[in-house]
Amino acid sequence: EDQKKQQSAASSDPYSSDPERHPVLRVNSLKPFNAEPPPELLSDSYVTPSAIFFKRNHLPVPRVDPASYELQVDGLPGGGLKLSLEDLKNRFPKYTVTATLQCAGNRRSEMNAVKQVKGLNWGISAISNATWAGARLRDVLLAAGYGPDAARWARHVQFEGLDKDVTGTTYGASIPVNKATNEEGDVLLAYEMNGEPLPPDHGFPVRVVVPGTVGARNVKWLSKITVSAEESSSHWQQNDYKGFSPTTDWDTVDFKSAPAIQELPVQSAITVPADGAAVPRGSEEVTVKGYAWSGGGREVVRVDVSLDGGKTWQVAELRSSDGGQNAEPSPPPGRAWAWKLWELTAPLPSEARQLEIVCKAVDNSYNMQPDTVAPIWNLRGVLSNAWHRVKVNIVDSNE
Amino acid sequence: EDQKKQQSAASSDPYSSDPERHPVLRVNSLKPFNAEPPPELLSDSYVTPSAIFFKRNHLPVPRVDPASYELQVDGLPGGGLKLSLEDLKNRFPKYTVTATLQCAGNRRSEMNAVKQVKGLNWGISAISNATWAGARLRDVLLAAGYGPDAARWARHVQFEGLDKDVTGTTYGASIPVNKATNEEGDVLLAYEMNGEPLPPDHGFPVRVVVPGTVGARNVKWLSKITVSAEESSSHWQQNDYKGFSPTTDWDTVDFKSAPAIQELPVQSAITVPADGAAVPRGSEEVTVKGYAWSGGGREVVRVDVSLDGGKTWQVAELRSSDGGQNAEPSPPPGRAWAWKLWELTAPLPSEARQLEIVCKAVDNSYNMQPDTVAPIWNLRGVLSNAWHRVKVNIVDSNE
Ligand SMILES: [Mo]
Ligand SMILES: [Mo]
Repeated sequence: EDQKKQQSAASSDPYSSDPERHPVLRVNSLKPFNAEPPPELLSDSYVTPSAIFFKRNHLPVPRVDPASYELQVDGLPGGGLKLSLEDLKNRFPKYTVTATLQCAGNRRSEMNAVKQVKGLNWGISAISNATWAGARLRDVLLAAGYGPDAARWARHVQFEGLDKDVTGTTYGASIPVNKATNEEGDVLLAYEMNGEPLPPDHGFPVRVVVPGTVGARNVKWLSKITVSAEESSSHWQQNDYKGFSPTTDWDTVDFKSAPAIQELPVQSAITVPADGAAVPRGSEEVTVKGYAWSGGGREVVRVDVSLDGGKTWQVAELRSSDGGQNAEPSPPPGRAWAWKLWELTAPLPSEARQLEIVCKAVDNSYNMQPDTVAPIWNLRGVLSNAWHRVKVNIVDSNE
Repeated sequence: EDQKKQQSAASSDPYSSDPERHPVLRVNSLKPFNAEPPPELLSDSYVTPSAIFFKRNHLPVPRVDPASYELQVDGLPGGGLKLSLEDLKNRFPKYTVTATLQCAGNRRSEMNAVKQVKGLNWGISAISNATWAGARLRDVLLAAGYGPDAARWARHVQFEGLDKDVTGTTYGASIPVNKATNEEGDVLLAYEMNGEPLPPDHGFPVRVVVPGTVGARNVKWLSKITVSAEESSSHWQQNDYKGFSPTTDWDTVDFKSAPAIQELPVQSAITVPADGAAVPRGSEEVTVKGYAWSGGGREVVRVDVSLDGGKTWQVAELRSSDGGQNAEPSPPPGRAWAWKLWELTAPLPSEARQLEIVCKAVDNSYNMQPDTVAPIWNLRGVLSNAWHRVKVNIVDSNE
């Protein structure tokens, strides 16, 4: 009878069909499931293994039968389009794009340390890089009748997921129509992640991958695409995922006054060593590792690393693949969707007892990260991209 | 005879045919002529009058006969294209774009104050906004035979000016081909500035206007356009107008290691009050004015102003036209080429004897300006976009 009760409780729990997750993940919330990998694993792989790719769910994971799955394309004259998973795979060329996704709340914990914000307390690993494959959204929109006529009134492409809350409200978001239709936008209706079907946590069977754009617009378990003159009316588009001045609080915030986050600003962080780590003096040098990425297809062109809290800087080595330091050709301008991993090995300053290691990245529009957190603090704790700092202690061998 | 000598000296001076300039300009160098308007005039007009638009010449101003002017388009199969000024006006639709141009060296004086750099000592006014009209570069390239075949190998569009040094070397630069050919790139072969033919200092009869891109690529007195697999080989593309880490000096600099500056980072500055100005205590409030702009068509969405050196912030009013505070519709995403002027009127803090006024802008990719100058310092003093700071003294009425 106890067993029966438990089963009944389990089946009334909307999260009961959530998938198993890798035990190495650091869990920020169980229901919905939100978790990030340990930083040192992140910089081990240029392409993040799907099992440790950060998980950011707003709602329970819907379980979708691929045989009956249907994607609806709406808003265009001619009655719209309905596509099965097989249609999507067979009727449209398959494109492959390696793209980094980052949660708007990545590094929120550093804002929380300045003054409390509202949101999951992400560390520095709510960002990951994967190779996605699927149909191009542009091709699907053209097949659905998008053309010069629609271009006259269309301004946004809205997405709706199959994930829903207890009232039946589904997750939704939108992107500007030119990002969706531009040949160089590289927006995918992805059905593969790292060469496999999408895992349940990442949107099986189909998600939108909007390279260069905040994670929140990369809608998972995609059910509906709507071409519209308006942005998505969802909570997450209208009243969340926006940036405000440090002065703005919950009494004064006017969500209409800021644009929805789309492209993200330049970002970098130190994955190795960890804050508070001990470095033996005998090692004579220290190796610092991390990631760097910028939104909007802007390529990271340099990462500066300081061992003295930002007084002097050294330039790190960048890499764009898993195969060592060999230089990959630069992607076309505006289409650098994937991060760079970086590394610097430098002599230990002989006198130092402690190092304050700092990193800052530069992208090819020469935007740089702001120096400090407080002036970019905002009530939702999003867009946290100040210089990243870790302190390490240099310890003698006998300690 | 003295008069004869003077005339001979004058005619051997390559700058002798430079035009007259407005006396209000602050001259940084006479030959070549480089000058900027007083900051308080800059924020008086949303569209900067041509006479006070900053002048940035690398070489003497060439005097061009519009009747015999010829623009050559090279590098495409089929022998290229030669266009007279009349051809350019009659064979191609006329487009009008309001775009802000900024010199890479704007605000270099603030870097110079940290540690000496090489370059003209610009203040905060090497930036201006004008309404440009002309043919679209895209249309001219299509007429010259640009198409899918050329897209396979073409990577850059090179420009050459008629301005040359004593050895005959002409000014040159290039931009990525996708900026030139994209329908949303809005690159013009401009023959009008603010409704008039281009003034001699701004490239009469034709200049390239590359919205969102550093001034140096907006080649004046345009003589030649070359579609190429390579960037311009000019000094200004290869060995100048690039950013480096603060550690890089003239002994260690490797110009190949950094990309040519194209899109510029987010920028803002305070035009009123001037640094060191006196504010009467009796006025009880202070009005702060300035400009804000970002490269790559990213729209400025917010300007934060601090009266206490960056501890607390207030949000300024933005405007996008000369007609008061009325909200203009936002430009399409990625095509915000013109600056915003901004203004904040705030109560004078009652106890203060001095205010440190600071501004910082945010663009719609939520990039922000770095806090301080030293960490972005570079040997050429380019890309100086830290928070702008002015100190003003609050004086009693009887002082
Ligand atoms: Mo997110
Ligand atoms: Mo410049």
